[in-house]
Amino acid sequence: MTYCVGILVDDGLVFVSDSRTNAGVDQVATFRKTITYHRPGDRAIVLLTSGNLSITQSVETLLRRAIEAEDESRSLMQVRSLFDGARAVGGALREIYDYDGKHLEAHSTDFNAGLILGGQIKGQPPRLFQIYAAGNFIEATPETTFFQIGETKYGKPVLDRLIGRDTSLTTAAKCALVSFDSTMRSNVSVGLPLDLTCYRRDSYDFGVTERIDAGSAYFNMIHNEWSAGLARVFNQVPDPDWEI
Amino acid sequence: MTYCVGILVDDGLVFVSDSRTNAGVDQVATFRKTITYHRPGDRAIVLLTSGNLSITQSVETLLRRAIEAEDESRSLMQVRSLFDGARAVGGALREIYDYDGKHLEAHSTDFNAGLILGGQIKGQPPRLFQIYAAGNFIEATPETTFFQIGETKYGKPVLDRLIGRDTSLTTAAKCALVSFDSTMRSNVSVGLPLDLTCYRRDSYDFGVTERIDAGSAYFNMIHNEWSAGLARVFNQVPDPDWEI
Repeated sequence: MTYCVGILVDDGLVFVSDSRTNAGVDQVATFRKTITYHRPGDRAIVLLTSGNLSITQSVETLLRRAIEAEDESRSLMQVRSLFDGARAVGGALREIYDYDGKHLEAHSTDFNAGLILGGQIKGQPPRLFQIYAAGNFIEATPETTFFQIGETKYGKPVLDRLIGRDTSLTTAAKCALVSFDSTMRSNVSVGLPLDLTCYRRDSYDFGVTERIDAGSAYFNMIHNEWSAGLARVFNQVPDPDWEI
Repeated sequence: MTYCVGILVDDGLVFVSDSRTNAGVDQVATFRKTITYHRPGDRAIVLLTSGNLSITQSVETLLRRAIEAEDESRSLMQVRSLFDGARAVGGALREIYDYDGKHLEAHSTDFNAGLILGGQIKGQPPRLFQIYAAGNFIEATPETTFFQIGETKYGKPVLDRLIGRDTSLTTAAKCALVSFDSTMRSNVSVGLPLDLTCYRRDSYDFGVTERIDAGSAYFNMIHNEWSAGLARVFNQVPDPDWEI
């Protein structure tokens, strides 16, 4: 399983991915699910991937080849807008589908993939997209603060409750980590290390690219403080006066 | 959609169900998903239902017929143990599957049903079962505090974090309501009113059977206090010292 979240606030973007990949419970491995595309002063783009690893790795390879080939319409280092970038990712998905789709189907395997693409290209506002297995995509509007892929539900309530577009980057990053803590507590197939990437609007550079593992003091503090704080709040909520 | 939870603690049992049923977003209705079977001094049993309403209503009807027919092996008012009760519910599911299954399949409709059965029969400990669409079931063991059916994920983290088998009935009921509050915030297809049923061990009577609607002062207080408390705890967790 996988859990990734991309957050778009007024000040910029926050991305977090876990790194656990499993094909059955006896085949668990660690793969990085955050890929960055960066040209200082011009663009900073992040791609988060979930789903069948053979599909998402192939997408990554096709995107890398497009960069090497300096393909203007498909290279994330050259596309003129993030909309074109989302189309490039969707196009790569469709190419993999044409190549692998019917073979996966013959083995009763879904063509399962979900991606989040976000970032900023010089002269344009920061943008955030969610791209589906069919290669189609949606974009975050002013009412949308985040997109999630993979094991999304356990960690959604805290995002719903605690952040909005006017939340600071730091607070958004903290909330994303709380969301991961909740998810990892309820689903063992989402696991450390996490990759955290923060991007401040108009910087065209990544402010934070942090790998958070079991030794991360900050994440462990969040884990303990949040858990203790929830228990405290729960105890403070008055009991019902029903006679049970 | 539906969300139901059954909690087994040392002191007894707590059951909560929502009441929203929808077939498409333009066909939303209210149906009670908690059914009680009660003979004072002898037994108190609760059945929670989720899934296709045509299936769960038919199950309920077959169970009622078995009671009217005084069928010793299938009447929940007569079965000798809750294990036999779970078999009676599973048997009703299988009868409906034999009758409806292939017709649903012809219309590409899953045979979707999940149930929770719990309670106590005189001279036996309280027990809690989760029954699947195939009519098979599992029972809560000393390590298991709750079963959920329907839209389970949004409300699971708070149950995972806050209750155990030694939790009091009152606290378990409070936690169940917090779990529903989180679920309803993230999925509009789970909705009020809620049905709350509490059973104290060895009472053979229902201590609380409460219908919680939009006018419930206690539930509204939980909603507000929990939300404000979470925000408070979140703000108290120190920010990371990364320079973003």
